[in-house]
Amino acid sequence: MTARYRLHYAPDNASLPVRLALEELGADYAAVLVDRSRQAQRAPGYLKLNPAGLIPVLETPDGPIFETAAILLWLADRHGALAPLPADPGRAAFLKWLFFASNTLHAGLRLRFYPALYVGGDPSAQAALRIATGAELARQFALLDAAAAEWDRGLTVLHLYLAPMLRWAALYPDGATDWFALADYPRLAAVCAELERRASVRAAIAAEGLGPAPFTAPVHPRPPEGAAR
Amino acid sequence: MTARYRLHYAPDNASLPVRLALEELGADYAAVLVDRSRQAQRAPGYLKLNPAGLIPVLETPDGPIFETAAILLWLADRHGALAPLPADPGRAAFLKWLFFASNTLHAGLRLRFYPALYVGGDPSAQAALRIATGAELARQFALLDAAAAEWDRGLTVLHLYLAPMLRWAALYPDGATDWFALADYPRLAAVCAELERRASVRAAIAAEGLGPAPFTAPVHPRPPEGAAR
Repeated sequence: MTARYRLHYAPDNASLPVRLALEELGADYAAVLVDRSRQAQRAPGYLKLNPAGLIPVLETPDGPIFETAAILLWLADRHGALAPLPADPGRAAFLKWLFFASNTLHAGLRLRFYPALYVGGDPSAQAALRIATGAELARQFALLDAAAAEWDRGLTVLHLYLAPMLRWAALYPDGATDWFALADYPRLAAVCAELERRASVRAAIAAEGLGPAPFTAPVHPRPPEGAAR
Repeated sequence: MTARYRLHYAPDNASLPVRLALEELGADYAAVLVDRSRQAQRAPGYLKLNPAGLIPVLETPDGPIFETAAILLWLADRHGALAPLPADPGRAAFLKWLFFASNTLHAGLRLRFYPALYVGGDPSAQAALRIATGAELARQFALLDAAAAEWDRGLTVLHLYLAPMLRWAALYPDGATDWFALADYPRLAAVCAELERRASVRAAIAAEGLGPAPFTAPVHPRPPEGAAR
């Protein structure tokens, strides 16, 4: 038997929101480890799935999809769950915050995690990037926290995307997370606490070694296979 | 009579792809100038429409939408045109490149246009940001150019998004565009040339003063109202 979907993942990587969505949907999927210790995301076979060389990829009957938020939206629409339908009046607000999460929050976290990609190797430029983007990210999480007051339509893939990003903000990079405190964003913290009671999150904890409270009290992962970096 | 949609725009800003989509759809819309010379995008009334203080916003019967790509996708789905439908096998490839365009290309261009937001005021950090992101953007446009070989489904909002970004890469910021040459991306250049023959682009040229060949031979805009910066 072949699974309907194949998720190319690494522990605690951007594949985590997709795993949560697949679990919530009860989808038939196999998880395929991308060995970051060997830079497997840059291997020729992987680049055929995603030429940008990033994790995750979801192989589907309609071909491989990459970009975390694209996969989340495609899965939600295809399964008719975890997002307002295109004809729903709530679709507009959902899409604007989904794209904001992708191109502002997620892109901003990447600036902090991979500074050499954006400013090269100069330590003072990297420090400047870290300081300015930390301040911007704090402002952006506050915008989302305010907007969350109007989200009353149940669980969506946006929640499954935000909780891991809040986790990553608290954990990475080592020693440079003091700009972030989940308690500053009470509505987002409540989303995190609610998610931790769900079976999907318990499955992800087991599969990726995320610890008992991966969003409200995150610790570095101890995965059963692979490595986060 | 009130128009169905209100597009809050500034000339040659991120509102341009949305204007093109509205024109292609023959949608009933009014364009409302955001006066950047007075920082009107930071005024309290505008922040109620988009708390992030960015252009564009599209006011719709379902409320205001921001984020360029979110608006494009919402319009395409609501009008059933300019994108593969959610059930279409081409939806997966469309979505992955739409998100890539938003969170990688568009976000990368912003790094070059607004360096102080990301590294503060230090000129050497800004120069480092500009050099590294120019190299990354060139690589990313090349990925898109290769992928465009497989796009055979007619005009989509992705084309309407990419052509303005290629324009901006060629024009902004002043004096720091030598990393970019449209001819390096022949498939994307062909998209640009085809678009310039369309009535939607001629309407945008007239409304925003974009010059006769805004994508294949861009010059700085001379808009009839407002200012690009």
